[in-house]
Amino acid sequence: MSLLVLGTVALDNIKTPAGTKRGLLGGSAAHLAMSARLFTKVHLVSIVGKDFPKKHTQLLKRKGVDLTSVVKGEGKTFQWDGKYEADDFNSAITLDTELGVLMNYSPQVEDSQRDMGNVFLANFDPDVQLEFLGLLNKPKFVGLDSMNLWIDIKKKSLVKLLKKVNLFVANDGEARALTGEKNLIKAAKALQKMGPEFIVIKKGEHGMLFYCKKFMFAFPAYPVENVIDPTGAGDTFAGGMMGYLSKTKKINEKTFRKAAIYGTTLSSFNVEGFGMAKTTPLTMMYVNTRMKKLLNFIKA
Amino acid sequence: MSLLVLGTVALDNIKTPAGTKRGLLGGSAAHLAMSARLFTKVHLVSIVGKDFPKKHTQLLKRKGVDLTSVVKGEGKTFQWDGKYEADDFNSAITLDTELGVLMNYSPQVEDSQRDMGNVFLANFDPDVQLEFLGLLNKPKFVGLDSMNLWIDIKKKSLVKLLKKVNLFVANDGEARALTGEKNLIKAAKALQKMGPEFIVIKKGEHGMLFYCKKFMFAFPAYPVENVIDPTGAGDTFAGGMMGYLSKTKKINEKTFRKAAIYGTTLSSFNVEGFGMAKTTPLTMMYVNTRMKKLLNFIKA
Repeated sequence: MSLLVLGTVALDNIKTPAGTKRGLLGGSAAHLAMSARLFTKVHLVSIVGKDFPKKHTQLLKRKGVDLTSVVKGEGKTFQWDGKYEADDFNSAITLDTELGVLMNYSPQVEDSQRDMGNVFLANFDPDVQLEFLGLLNKPKFVGLDSMNLWIDIKKKSLVKLLKKVNLFVANDGEARALTGEKNLIKAAKALQKMGPEFIVIKKGEHGMLFYCKKFMFAFPAYPVENVIDPTGAGDTFAGGMMGYLSKTKKINEKTFRKAAIYGTTLSSFNVEGFGMAKTTPLTMMYVNTRMKKLLNFIKA
Repeated sequence: MSLLVLGTVALDNIKTPAGTKRGLLGGSAAHLAMSARLFTKVHLVSIVGKDFPKKHTQLLKRKGVDLTSVVKGEGKTFQWDGKYEADDFNSAITLDTELGVLMNYSPQVEDSQRDMGNVFLANFDPDVQLEFLGLLNKPKFVGLDSMNLWIDIKKKSLVKLLKKVNLFVANDGEARALTGEKNLIKAAKALQKMGPEFIVIKKGEHGMLFYCKKFMFAFPAYPVENVIDPTGAGDTFAGGMMGYLSKTKKINEKTFRKAAIYGTTLSSFNVEGFGMAKTTPLTMMYVNTRMKKLLNFIKA
């Protein structure tokens, strides 16, 4: 089944100990799409500016991503300037953010997209995520990602949103900030009480934790020795997970575990290059080869 | 096969968000023995003071631990005062340390213990660890644990020691401090180049990583919701690992993975109570029941 994704499409300027790159294709929805497109047809809902490079549009199209609902607004594309320090690839430091066309954006979808069963709300203003959900005809399965910024300044909208989604994907810092629980199992349980039946807590280099009332599991991250740029790793993880779940159509313990393994595999490629350098050329052959290595790495 | 363990036997005064306890049986060797004794006969090499409570001696004996080489010195038992903050169970804060009989301690072993094949050097002054190794007749397999203090003040002795052991068990902070590598895979490789064929990096709530030239693996920690006191969790982990390896007698990928699973299982009990409250009553029935839950938790 297709996957409908709302999120940002951005131009990223990124500095890491490995170097500096400008004008990279980025944003939560773009990273998510580049991962999920390996499993299913992805329909993006977003906005870019007049300055958005044609090569980025062409790349996404070439990868099979449907951009019908990516509108071109007056103004500049959302731009993020960030850096990572050598000793902490788990925390991005924002140097500058230019919202550009994101200001006053109202999501628009095609009529055919209103009935899509699988939806992911990649990181975006929770009010925009709520507005977007309102356009849809009772989707079967809705996943959500957010970020610390929205927990700080739009907690009320985020809490409202949590009641409307099936799956919430948060990183450890966000899970702790949103619940006040330091212990991640307690945090996952508290998040589940806020609405979503299924909780994923991403722990960066330490892997991930899945929690729902009936079962829980955890996987370490794939061992990457040379992290180049972790930007979008969480979106790439969510893309692998949601892409696989959309493809398999079944939602159960077995498919969640496999979806998390795919997400873990995909995100390991993401961190090995700037932007989407390593996820763009991927085919399922590369993904499955690394997945086998991951399965061997975590085998008890 | 028996396991010969050098390390500290201490009286711990511990403050955690769950409460305060004084005069607990603690120390690296004691925690290690309480875990390893489930798998094999453990022979402790250590020193206590005149004040060491008879009940602690009796407990260790009742659990089958051989104390022949635990001498009683003039002076007070080594005492550690520590605390943990609610938001960071991964870092112990030392409030006070009274070395007591540890000062000027020279390890002594029985003649029959010199030929034991499996040896673990639990956390202790690396010069004492070196002196102890000198008393033994070429042990088949030697494991080593240390701590940040020795990396800071006795790095030279520790580096010398690393060339003489087969397995080094370090926590993530120690691995990073000793190698200068932030990435844990790189740190593990760097440690391996310093001498030991096998490297374990303990990551507290995030589990563990095993590295050797031929294979590597990682397991998440067992999900403990109510951490009471993590003191000795690393020693308990090492005890489960070394205990199992001593019992099985084989050193290969399969036994290392199983040993790490046992270590992970045992350490999850340790953190659920003050001191050895939860490891003391353990039998293999409890251990195997939780191990099955752990295997299910991490199953891909």
